[in-house]
Amino acid sequence: MDLQSDYNSCNSEQLRARYALLKERYDAFKREGLKLDMSRGKPCKEQLELSMDMLRATDADDFIGGTDYRNYGGIDGIPAAKKLFADILEASDEEVIIGGNSSLNMMYDTIVRALINGVNNKGGEGTPWSNLPSVKFICPSPGYDRHFAICEHLNIEMITVEMLESGPDMDAIERLVREDDTIKGIWCVPKYSNPEGTTYSDDTVDRLAALETKAEDFRIFWDNAYAVHHLSDQHDKLKNILEACKAAGHPDRVYLFASTSKITFPGAGVAAMATSKANADLIRKQLSFQTIGPDKMNQQRHARFLGDMAQLERHMARHAALIAPKFSLVLDRLESELGGRGIASWNKPSGGYFISLNTMDGCAREVVRLASECGVTLTGAGATFPYGRDPRDRNIRIAPTFPSLAELDKAIDILCICVGMTSIDRILANR
Amino acid sequence: MDLQSDYNSCNSEQLRARYALLKERYDAFKREGLKLDMSRGKPCKEQLELSMDMLRATDADDFIGGTDYRNYGGIDGIPAAKKLFADILEASDEEVIIGGNSSLNMMYDTIVRALINGVNNKGGEGTPWSNLPSVKFICPSPGYDRHFAICEHLNIEMITVEMLESGPDMDAIERLVREDDTIKGIWCVPKYSNPEGTTYSDDTVDRLAALETKAEDFRIFWDNAYAVHHLSDQHDKLKNILEACKAAGHPDRVYLFASTSKITFPGAGVAAMATSKANADLIRKQLSFQTIGPDKMNQQRHARFLGDMAQLERHMARHAALIAPKFSLVLDRLESELGGRGIASWNKPSGGYFISLNTMDGCAREVVRLASECGVTLTGAGATFPYGRDPRDRNIRIAPTFPSLAELDKAIDILCICVGMTSIDRILANR
Repeated sequence: MDLQSDYNSCNSEQLRARYALLKERYDAFKREGLKLDMSRGKPCKEQLELSMDMLRATDADDFIGGTDYRNYGGIDGIPAAKKLFADILEASDEEVIIGGNSSLNMMYDTIVRALINGVNNKGGEGTPWSNLPSVKFICPSPGYDRHFAICEHLNIEMITVEMLESGPDMDAIERLVREDDTIKGIWCVPKYSNPEGTTYSDDTVDRLAALETKAEDFRIFWDNAYAVHHLSDQHDKLKNILEACKAAGHPDRVYLFASTSKITFPGAGVAAMATSKANADLIRKQLSFQTIGPDKMNQQRHARFLGDMAQLERHMARHAALIAPKFSLVLDRLESELGGRGIASWNKPSGGYFISLNTMDGCAREVVRLASECGVTLTGAGATFPYGRDPRDRNIRIAPTFPSLAELDKAIDILCICVGMTSIDRILANR
Repeated sequence: MDLQSDYNSCNSEQLRARYALLKERYDAFKREGLKLDMSRGKPCKEQLELSMDMLRATDADDFIGGTDYRNYGGIDGIPAAKKLFADILEASDEEVIIGGNSSLNMMYDTIVRALINGVNNKGGEGTPWSNLPSVKFICPSPGYDRHFAICEHLNIEMITVEMLESGPDMDAIERLVREDDTIKGIWCVPKYSNPEGTTYSDDTVDRLAALETKAEDFRIFWDNAYAVHHLSDQHDKLKNILEACKAAGHPDRVYLFASTSKITFPGAGVAAMATSKANADLIRKQLSFQTIGPDKMNQQRHARFLGDMAQLERHMARHAALIAPKFSLVLDRLESELGGRGIASWNKPSGGYFISLNTMDGCAREVVRLASECGVTLTGAGATFPYGRDPRDRNIRIAPTFPSLAELDKAIDILCICVGMTSIDRILANR
């Protein structure tokens, strides 16, 4: 019996034998009483150490720029932080707004402003979305669970659209937005997407920019969370959507977001957004009611430490050196344990924080449950889809960065064993 | 002619002579081309220096508590920060939620949640205020301009209620809320109030807690911005409203806010709120859709540096040592330049950041304009009232902390001269 042959072509006896072997390994791991977490895209301790030098700014002079950054003021950030994020997001300084520590919070606030004040395409406010009987967002899936959670919390109906190798299914999107003026937005993680590691093609970017939407106040939420988060020297290239939108005659259509959460310190980083100057001017005005301004001292720390794009890229290469081996371990093990069995497929990302594993239909939830019983926490099955419902119950998001290589080694073994056992169960049940 | 006698009892000739003297001094100052700012309650440079030692936390170990505070997690703050703010706000740890750098932003978000999700008194959501045809807030005035700006921005109608020596006019408030169920809230700066330095009496706190409101979802926004900001050893004592609300059978009525903006660094401090555990639990749940959590590294810096209440009080005494002389200078000068003239009155605060000056009716706007022409920027006249409209056009907010003593010396001279000139103009015009 070739252990690496396609399970679907094995007879039931062979499958039962394989199951027994897997079960034996599963039970052995279970006896170890492990506690391994591959659930969230968290940097590991060694990655955090990379940014400790940032804290060396301790003198008054370190925090005095155009003004004394230790005092009030500056609604949209200090010039050096704007410059840095203008480079990351490929926008101009005046199109950038620096926020607090959370880009998710900036996305949330942007939607809340649309709900309360509305948006138009002349740099002003419009019909508040909360006054409308229905507001819908397009959610390319699998995608980022926290995007979907914002929609669910704010009563925005989600329409699932499939992710292809080139990005979201643009044919479907073009059809949807042309006819339905309650569709007000789309979530995108356009580079090294969460969880599939897909980078949108130039054609996808152009088609998003050119979309003919029935809603005049349609907005693209462009969460460029992994803009500089490459795993090797081979960098995916993402077309500039801000420029594409301008070229297509929809300059105010897109909001871009990024943060240093996975560059310096998650939770103690700096977040930013970019959008047309008209949009940005409106947001600056609206923000002035909400706060006196974000933390300029932390911005200054970041601007000094990360410097320009060349310095930033060198810093990110140090991250890659720490996490690329983890991605390799997972991918190698998936290949050796699941390759050729006909029971799973996965992506090989060039950047980002995840590996997306697709099991046979109807198996993901059971795999996650089995793994959990063996001490391995995975992102909940379905989490990568709107309302937590994976229509094919097959997608599992693997987050390899946080555990040590030794922990990962065990965790991925257990995951593969659980996929094998669940698949055999399913194949046998279907016979 | 006694220069210190009441202007109202002077004859017109005497007044014109005084005016000429004042005008001479005014013109002399004007020739100096000054640029002095008494507009905002900003700490001065020397105050910022008091907290530089906080930045000495630079090692990994400095940021590892229950968890690694450099990584994701912790929706409502680290235990040490909760403890500190529980002490400041006189609440229990579980009633406290730590936010980002801005208590104003927490107030704004709290209102936005009520607009979008509503509030009830069982720890849940209710009728979204944005669904109602009208929402009103009571605004004790003079008060904090940024509170009023939030209301104006969010389409909340403001009802002005007078500030008395004991706090807001409770008779008026009791009448209003008993009959009008669209009145959903009240803004309070209960200790060393902005701008009058008033601390609410125990009776006022009890009456607020016991208010019989027609709206079941009435809320008190208790901005305790100056909780520990004393100017001397003589500390005003504010009754605990969280306890008073519990005792009165309205445990979920009040949201308390505070921050370290004027304790450590404005804009790079830590903000917090406190409310009943039921309210806090709901808010924690709602926040989890908005952000992964606030900056724990900055919380840890603060918790280590500020320590316990005894250490915090020592730190605040160092602030007082720097700014009390500025308050004294302003008060002495007001007394010597305006005392006994019958044209102005002012408070003598024991804490906080402001001195509130009342001119004769109808003079404040002109005084601010005259001072501005002489290089002295004051808070815009009317800013301390809803919609920027001071019904008697008499209140001027003086913020003495930011300028140096030498600058303040000139600025307050100019202010007094402008009050004198404007008052004489007014008295003569009325004859």
